Amino acid sequence: MQRALTLAATPGLDLGPNPRVGCVLLDAGGATLAEGFHRGAGTPHAEVVALTNARHAHGDDAARGATAVVTLEPCAHTGRTGPCADALRDAGVTRVVYAQPDPNPAAAGGAGVLIGAGVDVVGGVGAEDARELNRVWSTAVELGRPVVTWKVATTLDGRTAAVDGTSRWITSAAARRDVHRLRAEVDTVLVGTGTVLDDDPALTVRDADGPQPLRAVMGRRDLPATSRLAAPGPDGVETCHLRTHDPHEALAELWRLDRRHVLLEGGATLAAAFLRAGLVDEIVAYVAPALLGAGPPAVGDLGVTTIADAARFDLVDATVLEPTTDDLSTPDGPASGLAATNVRLTLRPRKES
Amino acid sequence: MQRALTLAATPGLDLGPNPRVGCVLLDAGGATLAEGFHRGAGTPHAEVVALTNARHAHGDDAARGATAVVTLEPCAHTGRTGPCADALRDAGVTRVVYAQPDPNPAAAGGAGVLIGAGVDVVGGVGAEDARELNRVWSTAVELGRPVVTWKVATTLDGRTAAVDGTSRWITSAAARRDVHRLRAEVDTVLVGTGTVLDDDPALTVRDADGPQPLRAVMGRRDLPATSRLAAPGPDGVETCHLRTHDPHEALAELWRLDRRHVLLEGGATLAAAFLRAGLVDEIVAYVAPALLGAGPPAVGDLGVTTIADAARFDLVDATVLEPTTDDLSTPDGPASGLAATNVRLTLRPRKES
Repeated sequence: MQRALTLAATPGLDLGPNPRVGCVLLDAGGATLAEGFHRGAGTPHAEVVALTNARHAHGDDAARGATAVVTLEPCAHTGRTGPCADALRDAGVTRVVYAQPDPNPAAAGGAGVLIGAGVDVVGGVGAEDARELNRVWSTAVELGRPVVTWKVATTLDGRTAAVDGTSRWITSAAARRDVHRLRAEVDTVLVGTGTVLDDDPALTVRDADGPQPLRAVMGRRDLPATSRLAAPGPDGVETCHLRTHDPHEALAELWRLDRRHVLLEGGATLAAAFLRAGLVDEIVAYVAPALLGAGPPAVGDLGVTTIADAARFDLVDATVLEPTTDDLSTPDGPASGLAATNVRLTLRPRKES
Repeated sequence: MQRALTLAATPGLDLGPNPRVGCVLLDAGGATLAEGFHRGAGTPHAEVVALTNARHAHGDDAARGATAVVTLEPCAHTGRTGPCADALRDAGVTRVVYAQPDPNPAAAGGAGVLIGAGVDVVGGVGAEDARELNRVWSTAVELGRPVVTWKVATTLDGRTAAVDGTSRWITSAAARRDVHRLRAEVDTVLVGTGTVLDDDPALTVRDADGPQPLRAVMGRRDLPATSRLAAPGPDGVETCHLRTHDPHEALAELWRLDRRHVLLEGGATLAAAFLRAGLVDEIVAYVAPALLGAGPPAVGDLGVTTIADAARFDLVDATVLEPTTDDLSTPDGPASGLAATNVRLTLRPRKES
């Protein structure tokens, strides 16, 4: 299973909306027959890759009597590829060991199909590691909507800009580079029309590898024709304009577009709308050691009037972001926020215990 | 010098407004004749203690030809005790090695007195360690006013209470225990009359050893006769009422009362007044992983309208405060802020470089 997990975690893949999956085929003596991993939407699943490799290496009957070790329960549905449960059965595999049960109701049931076909099935081996490998995908599939991470850059007193609207830069260059890393990890970046009008962001990934996330704007107003988001992104993809104020509707549309992880980068109003709807799964806050005393707040009205109703989260990480050599050599120097030491706090909704 | 620093750092002392000082007397061969350290205001200085100990152990001429190793430049002024420089000279000490130059203009000059008397004087040996031992005292003496630490307990969005004024509890029990540690380290706790009217705090030290700090209130309004601060503290000491809105005046009065370290625990208005006056030397912020969306802000108007004028600080420490077993067993449980993991951020005014 460890080898299957390593295959699944192969770096440099563009998975799209699909999970990371690895598969190892073993012969009756426990020797490796073949391996496979999933390379992303539209390509064969890990089990099919492994079966194909086995056939190429050892002939058509290679998998007869074999054991398949796979990080995710083999699927039972026909998508762009046929069901893996059928493929394993048809190839003569007699034992399947899998880690994570398939959280996707449309794809689940593969274990049952295999058991019904007389295959010996063991599930849950290394399930936690396998789930962690596809943490965001698993949560999204369970929720039936994209996972939402809200990113906010704030002063110690919770301001995201000064009274005159200026906000460049509250946080350090190191913090802003970390935001690009965050953007590179999601498949969608979402702001409100208000942020487009106020800040005209580009929302592209710089200083990080990987595909550009979809740039999405939410709200009923048109985008100014001269705004950066009115033009196609560096990958030629148009901005997705979601003409609604309802976070549920926006996420449903993004889900239809095969989106699994949305980074919310809008202002206080958009953040408050998602928080009130219970649709924020993670908060990543960059806190600058600065005070403004006035200016736009990090989050708008949450409908909370008394302390018992405060929106509570679990702090899952606190990381000090030291200024880099680059920061220190910027012309603005230490007088601006650029060269400061910032703190990144990661919060998740509180688990009731 | 290391031994003299260790003597100075003797735990359990109530120094009052005085610095920690240690002294070792060595004979011509380098053997220890006697030691001494300062026990606090009204007691003999470290040098005098060491000279007295030497006399008791080795007779009246014990210190003749000796070397005195002392953590702070021997004083040249007559306070409640005579000048140490004179005492060392009169005892026949021929060499003085000291660490930190005396930052107190009223007491400095001891090295000059000794040199004038033909004593061999070496200063600055271990000066950084010695200064660190009396960091707050040194800064206060240099500034000629008490050092000010502003403590604030806030949500991630910079709120210190909900719209209805409730604030118990924004931060965790562990964070509030840490505040008592902080109170035990200062000699004065200061709030505004507004905080007395709103929250009726006791401002006493619980769960920590050491003397109670002076409880001070700033502002022109009378304290309600029924308020906790209207009654004497647990040590029988009356609350000090500073009838001014001017932070400079308040600190000058506290300085006259021999105060060296003030913990500012008031609300947004008091904090803003000290910040605007440039009179905050340290910020200790307890940040709870919670959002309120509305309610009193951490700090009032600072007169800042554009980002370039933000009050910038250096982050000198970020500490995660894990909930303790006590927290987890409170009846309020994880639904309140009590059992949360909080972050303590320590900031100091930015050094220009």
